[in-house]
Amino acid sequence: MDVVSEESRIRVSWPDGHRATYHAVWLRDNCSCAECLHPSGQRLLDTRSIADGIAVTTAQARDGVLQSAFTDGHTSRFDSSWLRAHAGKPRPSSRRLWEARVDVPTGRWDDVRGDGEALRRWLAAVDELGFAVLTGCGTEPGTVTRVAELFGYVRETNYGRLFDVRSLVRATNLAYTGIGLGAHTDNPYRDPPPTLQLLHCLSSSTSGGESTLVDGFRVAADLRIDAPEAFELLARHALQFHYSDAGTELEAEAPVISLDARGDVVAIRFNTRSTAPFRLDEPLVEPYYDAYRVFGRMLESPSHQLRIMLAPGDLFIVDNTRVLHGRTGFTEAGERHLQGCYADRDGLRSRLAVLSR
Amino acid sequence: MDVVSEESRIRVSWPDGHRATYHAVWLRDNCSCAECLHPSGQRLLDTRSIADGIAVTTAQARDGVLQSAFTDGHTSRFDSSWLRAHAGKPRPSSRRLWEARVDVPTGRWDDVRGDGEALRRWLAAVDELGFAVLTGCGTEPGTVTRVAELFGYVRETNYGRLFDVRSLVRATNLAYTGIGLGAHTDNPYRDPPPTLQLLHCLSSSTSGGESTLVDGFRVAADLRIDAPEAFELLARHALQFHYSDAGTELEAEAPVISLDARGDVVAIRFNTRSTAPFRLDEPLVEPYYDAYRVFGRMLESPSHQLRIMLAPGDLFIVDNTRVLHGRTGFTEAGERHLQGCYADRDGLRSRLAVLSR
Repeated sequence: MDVVSEESRIRVSWPDGHRATYHAVWLRDNCSCAECLHPSGQRLLDTRSIADGIAVTTAQARDGVLQSAFTDGHTSRFDSSWLRAHAGKPRPSSRRLWEARVDVPTGRWDDVRGDGEALRRWLAAVDELGFAVLTGCGTEPGTVTRVAELFGYVRETNYGRLFDVRSLVRATNLAYTGIGLGAHTDNPYRDPPPTLQLLHCLSSSTSGGESTLVDGFRVAADLRIDAPEAFELLARHALQFHYSDAGTELEAEAPVISLDARGDVVAIRFNTRSTAPFRLDEPLVEPYYDAYRVFGRMLESPSHQLRIMLAPGDLFIVDNTRVLHGRTGFTEAGERHLQGCYADRDGLRSRLAVLSR
Repeated sequence: MDVVSEESRIRVSWPDGHRATYHAVWLRDNCSCAECLHPSGQRLLDTRSIADGIAVTTAQARDGVLQSAFTDGHTSRFDSSWLRAHAGKPRPSSRRLWEARVDVPTGRWDDVRGDGEALRRWLAAVDELGFAVLTGCGTEPGTVTRVAELFGYVRETNYGRLFDVRSLVRATNLAYTGIGLGAHTDNPYRDPPPTLQLLHCLSSSTSGGESTLVDGFRVAADLRIDAPEAFELLARHALQFHYSDAGTELEAEAPVISLDARGDVVAIRFNTRSTAPFRLDEPLVEPYYDAYRVFGRMLESPSHQLRIMLAPGDLFIVDNTRVLHGRTGFTEAGERHLQGCYADRDGLRSRLAVLSR
């Protein structure tokens, strides 16, 4: 590599024609000497302490190493490969959007319960697609938290470490009848909402009651193209969500579509059962409702929505900030018993990264 | 109240001159009859199922109740007081920004461990100011999770349900010396980061080692006024954060200042020890670093930063998305042992709301 030093930056070019510019303050900030970087990878240098107007005094390249001295008297060394790897834009996301025809990523409990390649593949599917299925889990109550503990930590809530979803036909409570539930994310009234949800089927002798799954990011991307004004309304205005019972009173506020600082979609929060009355400026009420219903109906469209029939022993996991789930109605006699739990994505991604080393 | 019905909306006026307009779709969506709303407060009506172009057919007010019929054949009733309470903007936040001279909200363990008014006041301070102190907690290991369980659920992480912060003078590892730690939020490499952090002092025989606390929202508000370009840079461009050890590899991406859909500050993520090399477009590198250091130094300014000396038996809690913490250096012989744990804000706010009923 060749280096040309200017005061506030160093221009580097490689034999293959690749070029990059490194600013003095960035280089000084990323010094990896023992004084600046702990062996753990945690930084010892506090960026705040770097002198204003810091500049390069000398720079030279030898044997694939850039050695640079700075006006604060410090000297740093950077490997050529490190410099190339850390310049420029962040790595693109491994995310892959999907529609109804997606191949369902499926693992088997006996395979993934080890720490090996089967687990890595299963976790990679969740990271990439936002969901995966696990079969052969048996029907022992509590299994759902054992699956979560394969890769992370259960997020305990007012519903407990795990919760039971029992839908008895001819129940007196409408919420426990066989009516279908539209696509939704869970716990939108929570702050932060759980980023992962697992649902494990213990028994299912009803007819119907298919689980529905839909990629909210795919639908949001389509909405952004087809109806950009609707997309903007859902991204720029927050809704209030709420849940209360004798011992609980949860409220949170968020838009249906959350964007990051670059304007990319980073979260969907959609749950018609848990919205509080919409609080919108009066001229926005009708356009917002139109946008909300357009998006909500797209979430239910057969081209977007995957249907799977969970058999006893089956489980699915969803990224609860991306993939919405629901169920179709069921009308015949029988019982349906699921157990669910929540967890968070950081644990899953950490285990995936460690298994991928 | 008087009502004037137009096709798509109802205009309501009250004897005191208050007026509001309610759209047909909004009213239909908020019907509270047994078919549309479950006694739990969960909605049974799926907003997606409301007919496009729904309109009001008749509307009348009698005895403080608006009765409205819709073109889908449904009739709904709304109490006057409910209509007034649910129109217009969301309630303003109870948040109160603070600087170094703030009165430190302090509870006593013996008082707050009941479910009563002392706990409500202590939780309200956390909700309003983003921090509070608890004294008289004793020095039994594990107490910190008992405090979290007063109002919510411990967020377990790779550090366990609780973690030990021991700083031994003359330790061989720089991270465990008495060097000061600048103001930071914890676990910025986590997704989602824990929204609450508790730190409990079990022993402290060193000299120095004060805890520092600073209201990141206050500092961000000042930055927004004093240096709006710097504020925009920190809000519009994300940083990468990372942490790794033998069994863990965590990465997350977020701006230092997160804004909500309205442009209000909703989270601060600042931790110079856990940033990965900044990935910024080349022309942004120097302005971004300038903005980052201006903000970081403001976080350390004596006018913004509160210092408290934790004695054995003392504990503080911070909203980890808002209030940054750190410690001053300590140089004399002795030991300092803290235990910490993480939890989430939704549990705290739920308990606060229930105690406030």
